Amino acid sequence: MPEQKESAEPTARAGLDHRSQRRSPDRFVAVRGLTESLASPLSAEDCVIQSMPDSSPVKWHLAHTTWFFETFILREHAPQYRVFDEKYDYLFNSYYNSIGDRISRSHRGLITRPTLEEIGRYRRYVDERVCELLESSAGQGREELDSLVELGLNHEQQHQELILTDIKHALSCNPLRPAYRTEVVAPFVIGSKPATWVDFPEELHSIGHDGGGFAFDNEGPRHRVFVDGFRLSARLVTQGEYLAFIEDGGYDRPQLWLSDGWKARTEHGWSSPLYWENHEGQRQILTLSGPRVIDESGPVCHVSFYEADAYARWAGVRLPTEAEWEIAATGREVEGHFLEGSESRLHPAPAPGGSGLEQLFGDTWEWTGSPYTPYPGYRAASGALGEYNGKFMCNQIVLRGGSCATPRGHIRSTYRNFFPAETRWQFSGIRLAADVS
Amino acid sequence: MPEQKESAEPTARAGLDHRSQRRSPDRFVAVRGLTESLASPLSAEDCVIQSMPDSSPVKWHLAHTTWFFETFILREHAPQYRVFDEKYDYLFNSYYNSIGDRISRSHRGLITRPTLEEIGRYRRYVDERVCELLESSAGQGREELDSLVELGLNHEQQHQELILTDIKHALSCNPLRPAYRTEVVAPFVIGSKPATWVDFPEELHSIGHDGGGFAFDNEGPRHRVFVDGFRLSARLVTQGEYLAFIEDGGYDRPQLWLSDGWKARTEHGWSSPLYWENHEGQRQILTLSGPRVIDESGPVCHVSFYEADAYARWAGVRLPTEAEWEIAATGREVEGHFLEGSESRLHPAPAPGGSGLEQLFGDTWEWTGSPYTPYPGYRAASGALGEYNGKFMCNQIVLRGGSCATPRGHIRSTYRNFFPAETRWQFSGIRLAADVS
Amino acid sequence: MPEQKESAEPTARAGLDHRSQRRSPDRFVAVRGLTESLASPLSAEDCVIQSMPDSSPVKWHLAHTTWFFETFILREHAPQYRVFDEKYDYLFNSYYNSIGDRISRSHRGLITRPTLEEIGRYRRYVDERVCELLESSAGQGREELDSLVELGLNHEQQHQELILTDIKHALSCNPLRPAYRTEVVAPFVIGSKPATWVDFPEELHSIGHDGGGFAFDNEGPRHRVFVDGFRLSARLVTQGEYLAFIEDGGYDRPQLWLSDGWKARTEHGWSSPLYWENHEGQRQILTLSGPRVIDESGPVCHVSFYEADAYARWAGVRLPTEAEWEIAATGREVEGHFLEGSESRLHPAPAPGGSGLEQLFGDTWEWTGSPYTPYPGYRAASGALGEYNGKFMCNQIVLRGGSCATPRGHIRSTYRNFFPAETRWQFSGIRLAADVS
Amino acid sequence: MPEQKESAEPTARAGLDHRSQRRSPDRFVAVRGLTESLASPLSAEDCVIQSMPDSSPVKWHLAHTTWFFETFILREHAPQYRVFDEKYDYLFNSYYNSIGDRISRSHRGLITRPTLEEIGRYRRYVDERVCELLESSAGQGREELDSLVELGLNHEQQHQELILTDIKHALSCNPLRPAYRTEVVAPFVIGSKPATWVDFPEELHSIGHDGGGFAFDNEGPRHRVFVDGFRLSARLVTQGEYLAFIEDGGYDRPQLWLSDGWKARTEHGWSSPLYWENHEGQRQILTLSGPRVIDESGPVCHVSFYEADAYARWAGVRLPTEAEWEIAATGREVEGHFLEGSESRLHPAPAPGGSGLEQLFGDTWEWTGSPYTPYPGYRAASGALGEYNGKFMCNQIVLRGGSCATPRGHIRSTYRNFFPAETRWQFSGIRLAADVS
Repeated sequence: MPEQKESAEPTARAGLDHRSQRRSPDRFVAVRGLTESLASPLSAEDCVIQSMPDSSPVKWHLAHTTWFFETFILREHAPQYRVFDEKYDYLFNSYYNSIGDRISRSHRGLITRPTLEEIGRYRRYVDERVCELLESSAGQGREELDSLVELGLNHEQQHQELILTDIKHALSCNPLRPAYRTEVVAPFVIGSKPATWVDFPEELHSIGHDGGGFAFDNEGPRHRVFVDGFRLSARLVTQGEYLAFIEDGGYDRPQLWLSDGWKARTEHGWSSPLYWENHEGQRQILTLSGPRVIDESGPVCHVSFYEADAYARWAGVRLPTEAEWEIAATGREVEGHFLEGSESRLHPAPAPGGSGLEQLFGDTWEWTGSPYTPYPGYRAASGALGEYNGKFMCNQIVLRGGSCATPRGHIRSTYRNFFPAETRWQFSGIRLAADVS
Repeated sequence: MPEQKESAEPTARAGLDHRSQRRSPDRFVAVRGLTESLASPLSAEDCVIQSMPDSSPVKWHLAHTTWFFETFILREHAPQYRVFDEKYDYLFNSYYNSIGDRISRSHRGLITRPTLEEIGRYRRYVDERVCELLESSAGQGREELDSLVELGLNHEQQHQELILTDIKHALSCNPLRPAYRTEVVAPFVIGSKPATWVDFPEELHSIGHDGGGFAFDNEGPRHRVFVDGFRLSARLVTQGEYLAFIEDGGYDRPQLWLSDGWKARTEHGWSSPLYWENHEGQRQILTLSGPRVIDESGPVCHVSFYEADAYARWAGVRLPTEAEWEIAATGREVEGHFLEGSESRLHPAPAPGGSGLEQLFGDTWEWTGSPYTPYPGYRAASGALGEYNGKFMCNQIVLRGGSCATPRGHIRSTYRNFFPAETRWQFSGIRLAADVS
Repeated sequence: MPEQKESAEPTARAGLDHRSQRRSPDRFVAVRGLTESLASPLSAEDCVIQSMPDSSPVKWHLAHTTWFFETFILREHAPQYRVFDEKYDYLFNSYYNSIGDRISRSHRGLITRPTLEEIGRYRRYVDERVCELLESSAGQGREELDSLVELGLNHEQQHQELILTDIKHALSCNPLRPAYRTEVVAPFVIGSKPATWVDFPEELHSIGHDGGGFAFDNEGPRHRVFVDGFRLSARLVTQGEYLAFIEDGGYDRPQLWLSDGWKARTEHGWSSPLYWENHEGQRQILTLSGPRVIDESGPVCHVSFYEADAYARWAGVRLPTEAEWEIAATGREVEGHFLEGSESRLHPAPAPGGSGLEQLFGDTWEWTGSPYTPYPGYRAASGALGEYNGKFMCNQIVLRGGSCATPRGHIRSTYRNFFPAETRWQFSGIRLAADVS
Repeated sequence: MPEQKESAEPTARAGLDHRSQRRSPDRFVAVRGLTESLASPLSAEDCVIQSMPDSSPVKWHLAHTTWFFETFILREHAPQYRVFDEKYDYLFNSYYNSIGDRISRSHRGLITRPTLEEIGRYRRYVDERVCELLESSAGQGREELDSLVELGLNHEQQHQELILTDIKHALSCNPLRPAYRTEVVAPFVIGSKPATWVDFPEELHSIGHDGGGFAFDNEGPRHRVFVDGFRLSARLVTQGEYLAFIEDGGYDRPQLWLSDGWKARTEHGWSSPLYWENHEGQRQILTLSGPRVIDESGPVCHVSFYEADAYARWAGVRLPTEAEWEIAATGREVEGHFLEGSESRLHPAPAPGGSGLEQLFGDTWEWTGSPYTPYPGYRAASGALGEYNGKFMCNQIVLRGGSCATPRGHIRSTYRNFFPAETRWQFSGIRLAADVS
């Protein structure tokens, strides 16, 4: 993911040969516009604060994504481009050592100036120059340019999700419990079918991105992997199921937990997922639309890897490996509840309850049991964009499938998200797996 | 002082019999208005952040001072007063346990809502009600009311100074080094006369407030204290003199420092006062008007007690006790550079270089060598306002005399300010003392 | 006190003119021998560990006191003295910067070598050389030598007390709850008379050491101080009285506590004095003779300044200032329960219940309300021994009167002990004071 | 590994069907005796201290391994066994929640009692009872007993290595730099051949333990894994090669480091492997025989995973996966420099410089690039011994091959050791791997 505390930044695949499906200017304008619409319900005050070291102010996201286009596209490819403000390198570089020094990550919330309004001007300035460039360039350089713009847009999409998860956390720190948005959304349908299993036979598979269309470099190279027979739960674990775990003493039984997980649970005093609250005897959950009663049929969300792992152990099974997940997802249509759409609730929805695998994409990211490591043959690109290709491949766990805060066009079956095991502020949930003996 | 991390809140003298010199409504309007004028150069973004646990957001100061009038005057004395928002107790109570729970001090910077605009409405709402009350009340209750309003106004003045010191710190954290205000101020006059001594004979004195006019309860009771002969430096230590200390290795010689001071210096890596910077080989100091070249004739400022003490030891003398300082200040006119006035620079100015004691009031607070303890016979009042009368009388050092950020009418010879020994973000400077043998 | 974390070391009075009452060699042998007898119940394993940063291993105390004689007496005054081991400077210097670098205080517990046995040889080696020196020297140098030896012996006595308080803490960390000594001691007499007050009129007093006999330099200069009328409780606060404070919710009422005290109580989870335990429903206290039932008539002990202060506020009175304590103690015989003697229980005993002031000396140190500051005219001596005369005069509180672990000849009415306000592992108790109106 | 801070404990394979090669009583006596011989150069003082939270006192190792036999064998299988001391459960349980509460890991260094001598008696008491049991038992139960004894002995061997690495660390904290042993060992042969590569073709392999002979449960189940073609360096990276990395600025170039690695390097101030020192301009290394000059031909040791990874990146290659390592090691004889033997130097030795793979076993553990995860189909056993089978499978990295401090009979090609990535006090070194394209 693009922004964690000392965390990963997406990077370009070296030697991309993909062709963007849509003309870049339109898509560019659309993606950039979506970012601004996400910030639009917020005041300048909302946009300046940083509620924990792992998160960033919304204003910073707005500026950093713009800086990315300025630094890697306009400065390099736009003739006679004049930098908007030289000092922005120091403020809005995330972690590119090759670009230079930068403000301490934990100080991002102290940057009241430039103001939100000025960052708006910065965005418009850069957007106009990028559009001019896209409209004027052609020929051989065009391919590299398209490739970089596509990278910048995917980077922007990652920050769109972070804008939502970061402001959700920030607003949760305010005792007034303000909502991000106040639109009335249809109530969840109560009731969910019992989970069923879908089986997969043992096989020597190939996984990883095959080079068609955009992908981040950590999704490749495509490579062979032998996988024993396994089964996946047809849907995500629900809040009702998770409640049974809680009521069975799940948070109080060290036998169910990894050693580091038990330590985290004890240190942080966890006794439920993040954003669960007891309000006058009723279990509520904070959503981006404010507090609401727990819906037992909805997927459990905002759990750490440790909680997902403990839940699976309690249930007598395990989490899927990322290979298993990818095998199951390969070839399926990318459909589900995402960031966009009139029906978007920015909150995971119950499974439709049809047959076969459901909720693979959208709703919640799914913790796998796989530590984040390089695929065989992985090699970092050179230069600033490739500077840190492998930099985060230690002490992180892979998540798959996207969430209700992920832009629809951003996710695919090979996509590898990753966060440290104790992360809870992302929309992270649980799908179970088991061996087939 | 009203707001430190877990720090002091001014409290009413029990049984005040003072009579305010001016009609309260006018004075009330004037003091409240000054607070708003101090916030006026700042944006909503500037006002929401908190740059360290010891400081508070400007918005919080604006709200807390208003809450003080609402809680201790309107709720108690205004018939049929309707509270502006019940939830504000939780947000804007500083440390009154009798009033109830409150937000963690270090979380004050996360309160984006209520917005700055809404706090503006809150201020106007409360101000109107207080003015109505003052205009309508009379008789016996009037005296208590005047007394409480006077307390509220003195409380407000303390927060006026904190607004300036807190925003100075916050802006200093922004690598763009923005200025609080951009008015051009006349350059400092370079050159300062050598310091001379003023002698005082041994004597059995009485110190402490005698009950005429407003005072905080920690300024009394008036009591006798025997003081040996002593001398005070006629002016504050200058930046030039302090520079000599630095260049003589003052920050590198443990013999000059208190044990806890050496620890603080080492832990924080101090090598100069706060806000001193090296900019391309030139020593600069950040002021509320932006960075400027060090003026050797101006008083050194933003030093901790430890630095003041080490400087005095290096100079072969010592800091004054608070009794010595008060003896010297008693009967003198309160004149100097304060917060208000067209010539106000919000920065200490060089001594005029006349004869006798100078700079006793204004310019910089003066660290004494006296820990903050109760005066003999001190007794806390009952109720919320008196709840914490002695609560901070441990591990703090007394400062005297006010600073360039103190409102003129707020200071007097008996005034006892206090902060922990390592505090540097206040306008704190040094006056030397010595024994007369 | 000689050894706290970054704490005070006793230093010589500059220009001592005192004459030791006893011939030094005998007294030297006696005091040094007492130290060894204190270590004799302990194994080498017991002597090597350090149970918290504030304490030191017994072996370190044995070596450091020896190093003190070697460094400040033998190296300086014994012709052709050959240092026992040059590396000991690094290991056994406490905090004398003038002597050179030293091992980090918190690492003292890792020094398994030199062994306890080798430190025994070190002690004998140094003792023999000091005795030789004392027997052979005479004339003018003899006076300075006597003075230094007296200082070294007083230093040794301070460490005798620390040996007991440090091993008490170390053994308390062992879940087996071993006793330091197993001698059967007579049970405490149950029952204590109600406390009465002893009054003192207002007066201009002189306090501080007058130069006759040995004293540490912080006990002078003698100086005048005006003290209002006051009264002192005739005896120490008992465990029974303190229990009433506990049962009245004393640990749960923030109004009773200093702000820093409430923070300490919350952070450390204090709900009783140190070494109090609940054992199967019974309140017990760990002593150097093992756990025993709480004796309600015995003085409460092992409380911090914060607890002493909160207790006094709960009782409606206050702690004495150090001047008040000294005025009351001046001219009285130094008698009470100390370290030595066949009846020594290394635990405070109930007040005898006679008339007038009792327990002023011995039993428990008495927290005063006075921060530790230099007396007027105090000036540090030059050189290593005087290097830190004032180094600890910040953020510490004065205690008076000695304890059941203080050597009898070590204490006097002018003696100023000092520790940070949250210290609990010393034998520290409470005497109440009040104003006379 | 058996003892890290909150770390792994070996556990029994469920349903062991192995048959021990040697009669247990002899082997039992031999292994237990080796442990005691490892402690024999140490004093009781040496054995009581704990120099960091990750390590344990030698006395604790001696007692804990004994407690293991007492708890899992004698209590369960010896008729009428009388427990040596019931309180030992609290002191010497490492992390078995099923057994009950235990002393905080970081407090193990405060247990002066029971004394080392008493722990000696405890060992003899338990050893006698185990020998009696082994000599008297037969029949069906005998097989389970043999299996448990074998587990206990393997557990004991893990602690043998920890005794050496823990005391090495403890002694390194003593500024006197004492040696663990003083035997003169032959100097290292200077000079090492350039490293060569050994290639392996792509293949679908089976790895993991096949159930013949003893193994820990994490070594199985045996399972298929597809591995692309790869090459391994024929020998370990030498100190001379690592020195070139240092001199090329390896510790100062963030591009070479994982993000977490750079953080660890910065936080701890790493600029060389642990135990490297500059002594008067000469690079020295602390060994268990005291300090010695760096031998450029010897393997680099005491590096963290982060340093191993950075070194490999600097060298343009990578670390092997654990599957690659195991494939290369399978079928090879277990020979090398181990704990035992007259030529043992308790320090890694240069490669012999023959042909083919060298130093696979012994000398130094080899960091792999593989996070420690369960093998497919892994399932924890039930009961206390299996309580934590998977408990440590998060945030740890696999090491392979054993070291110069590993008992010879303890290691095998399937053995999986694991430690957190920043661990340096184990004998951990580097073997390089590369892709075959």
